[in-house]
Amino acid sequence: MTTTAQIGVTGLAVMGRNLARNFARNGYTVALHNRTAARTRELVDRFGDEGDFVPTETAKEFVAALERPRRLVVMVKAGDPTDAVIKEFAPLLEPGDMIIDGGNAHFADTRRREKQLREQGIHFVGAGISGGEEGALNGPSIMPGGSEESYASLGPMLAKISAKAKDGAPCVTHVGPDGAGHFVKMTHNGIEYADMQLIGEAYQLLRDVAGYSAAQIADVFRTWNTGRLDSYLIEITAEVLSHVDEATGKPFVDVVLDQAEQKGTGRWTVQIALDLGVPVSGIAEAVFARSVSGHTALREASRHLAGPTARKLGEEEAAAFADQVEQALYASKIVSYTQGFHEMAAGSAEYDWNIDLGKVAAIWRGGCIIRAAFLDRITRAYEAQPQLPSLLSDKSFAEEIAAAQDDWRDVIATAARQGVPTPAFAATLAYYDSLRAERLPAALTQGQRDYFGAHTYRRTDRDGVFHTLWGGDKTEVDS
Amino acid sequence: MTTTAQIGVTGLAVMGRNLARNFARNGYTVALHNRTAARTRELVDRFGDEGDFVPTETAKEFVAALERPRRLVVMVKAGDPTDAVIKEFAPLLEPGDMIIDGGNAHFADTRRREKQLREQGIHFVGAGISGGEEGALNGPSIMPGGSEESYASLGPMLAKISAKAKDGAPCVTHVGPDGAGHFVKMTHNGIEYADMQLIGEAYQLLRDVAGYSAAQIADVFRTWNTGRLDSYLIEITAEVLSHVDEATGKPFVDVVLDQAEQKGTGRWTVQIALDLGVPVSGIAEAVFARSVSGHTALREASRHLAGPTARKLGEEEAAAFADQVEQALYASKIVSYTQGFHEMAAGSAEYDWNIDLGKVAAIWRGGCIIRAAFLDRITRAYEAQPQLPSLLSDKSFAEEIAAAQDDWRDVIATAARQGVPTPAFAATLAYYDSLRAERLPAALTQGQRDYFGAHTYRRTDRDGVFHTLWGGDKTEVDS
Repeated sequence: MTTTAQIGVTGLAVMGRNLARNFARNGYTVALHNRTAARTRELVDRFGDEGDFVPTETAKEFVAALERPRRLVVMVKAGDPTDAVIKEFAPLLEPGDMIIDGGNAHFADTRRREKQLREQGIHFVGAGISGGEEGALNGPSIMPGGSEESYASLGPMLAKISAKAKDGAPCVTHVGPDGAGHFVKMTHNGIEYADMQLIGEAYQLLRDVAGYSAAQIADVFRTWNTGRLDSYLIEITAEVLSHVDEATGKPFVDVVLDQAEQKGTGRWTVQIALDLGVPVSGIAEAVFARSVSGHTALREASRHLAGPTARKLGEEEAAAFADQVEQALYASKIVSYTQGFHEMAAGSAEYDWNIDLGKVAAIWRGGCIIRAAFLDRITRAYEAQPQLPSLLSDKSFAEEIAAAQDDWRDVIATAARQGVPTPAFAATLAYYDSLRAERLPAALTQGQRDYFGAHTYRRTDRDGVFHTLWGGDKTEVDS
Repeated sequence: MTTTAQIGVTGLAVMGRNLARNFARNGYTVALHNRTAARTRELVDRFGDEGDFVPTETAKEFVAALERPRRLVVMVKAGDPTDAVIKEFAPLLEPGDMIIDGGNAHFADTRRREKQLREQGIHFVGAGISGGEEGALNGPSIMPGGSEESYASLGPMLAKISAKAKDGAPCVTHVGPDGAGHFVKMTHNGIEYADMQLIGEAYQLLRDVAGYSAAQIADVFRTWNTGRLDSYLIEITAEVLSHVDEATGKPFVDVVLDQAEQKGTGRWTVQIALDLGVPVSGIAEAVFARSVSGHTALREASRHLAGPTARKLGEEEAAAFADQVEQALYASKIVSYTQGFHEMAAGSAEYDWNIDLGKVAAIWRGGCIIRAAFLDRITRAYEAQPQLPSLLSDKSFAEEIAAAQDDWRDVIATAARQGVPTPAFAATLAYYDSLRAERLPAALTQGQRDYFGAHTYRRTDRDGVFHTLWGGDKTEVDS
């Protein structure tokens, strides 16, 4: 038994296996462990020639195989399995050792675990890892939280296995203490939900209003991918839309059941935004859109509801409309990123994480699902102004929206009139118009609340808290 | 010391005090208790002539003053104070006694407390109470959960103190077991948020597009209140809008700071809807709109953002537009109630509460903030079809939306083009159009998910779960 593995991976399902291979391919000796030893043997049988693996069968063997301080990557299902693994390994570890949780844990769980293990002198590193199976093997975007001390030890290794942005920078940074990494990964996923929903709405408009075929829409997305929308999601949208189903000869997208599934991080993003008082309407609409799609009984019962039929456009009009949709998609994308970054800023303030939002954008440029040219722009915006109140406060984003807004408004108005659902397009525009409004109807809301519940209000012209005696002579009293 | 009080109230802040007076005015002998005895004495000093009160100073005295089985109403702040009161009183109670929590507890807390006290043979009744101070005194809408046995004992008393609908029916019903009452009260508040936001958007449109003064808008609401929108909230909106600030001579609504506050039940409604997979976009936008209004730094930084200026209409056009806004408000209201009732149906199914949604609508007709003629319609819809998949499945609501939809769409298109934020109007329309859509872009979403994460998909033409080998030859495999 060797004792020189620089890193160990426990939990060798596809994500864990690929991550272990990634470490080995980059020259690290990797200790392997799995609840059932068959998986460990299978990895070594199939991929043993990719690098140095140290297969182990028991927790004790696994821990003994690691050099000190030990680096132990846990790749099991988020939730109880993570706690079970910690319970198994923590007693075998020593102060200074590191447990890295690479799953999609809820950041509150990560905070709890970090605190608990810190008392034992063990570093618990909640690390968001994005990029799926493919990314785990060839380079993911990695968002580690935890102590600075642990990052000093782990950072160089993570940099080596991570994706590289176009400028060669590794897609990893120390996001912040305790749960910061998992929080940022969660928000990444929320933003991903919004991106996908916006793309879906653009597709629906091109289909129902422009009257384009799936193949034509694929071409439109391919063109968009050469411009400012250049991104992995736009690229694969073109791939999916141009794919033809072999069994039927129909466009693939037309034979797929239109009921979207979800795993929970989108939902968490919205729930936590609500706790933090951050409006994330674009992400919320994306989550709701997936659940609407799955309510088949409700949809069946609603087919008869009255609505206009979208009027298909002529060829030239359609091309012009497609250009407008690109403007709308881009403007809505800026707003939904604005909301997601606002949530990270609020989380960072709430938990004292001191997250560098520009660096977060930078490490999302490679490896992860929302990787895009666009993220460079966000990094530059935060570099220019680290205390940027919001992405919309950045001059160049504001200018782009200014240029896009007529088309943005047109597209949403057209969708409303023609009966094409565009919940995320509309929500992001409403957010934009709410922020720039001189006066919001919140004044009326406060008046109503004071009327029915004596909840009081403040005034525009002087300090204080007031209540009007609505049931009496309507004089105003200090409260 | 008498021992014949039929009911006791502990926690004598304004809600508890008014509820105690309500019981006393209705002929019940009411035992009183408060953490500090001064409040108890003050109640008796000021209102002792309204009925039979039994003031007590200690928990023991309080419990001793109640006839058996004891009925003990707790009116303290939701959260830890409720647990503290339970801890204090539970040891003094006997099997068969009832603790009624009249606060705005989270239904999950109510479930926990009910279960814990049930083991001791004590009935814990989480009762939603709506109507504010005024309702507590003169007749609230009451939504009790808990055991049927407890309702057999409490029901007649609650019926007596509750509001009465126009047809004389008391606004109380046994909602369902354990946390059902607090769940329904929470959803009531979520619907109230949406109602208030929709009214706010209508107000903003009448102000910025129709160009009406606050007084003119008050008149519009007064007119609406004579029609199908007849409701408490529309009525008080007219009151608030016609009120003139004495200090400045300006419309009151124009001197109130436009930053809306919130207490949490709206947020819970959305968070729990997300857990249940129910799309409540109208309520979510209402909650977000309040938080947007409070982000002053963000709003300050966004004042410069480009947008159109709403074009004010001429007199005749304005009147026609106001009629359109009424149609839009009504259609959006139907949809937001549809979403809220969907959440109650989902909660009822999840927790086996067997809630009668028609009865819930019926007990909201009086006493509570969202009381409205409209609710009679909902009751009738569920009476006609108890398993109604959604309010939109009711023929008469569907017909009304069909008649309203052209105006609804026009108003939302106008708002988008003219830069007036209408997040809840737009969200409810998008929900409506999503439900009636033949095909949603969820098919594309599933294709993308399968592409980047091998998340698989189902097909429209045959059963099974499939995956396409996107990185390979793109054949489809069973999964």
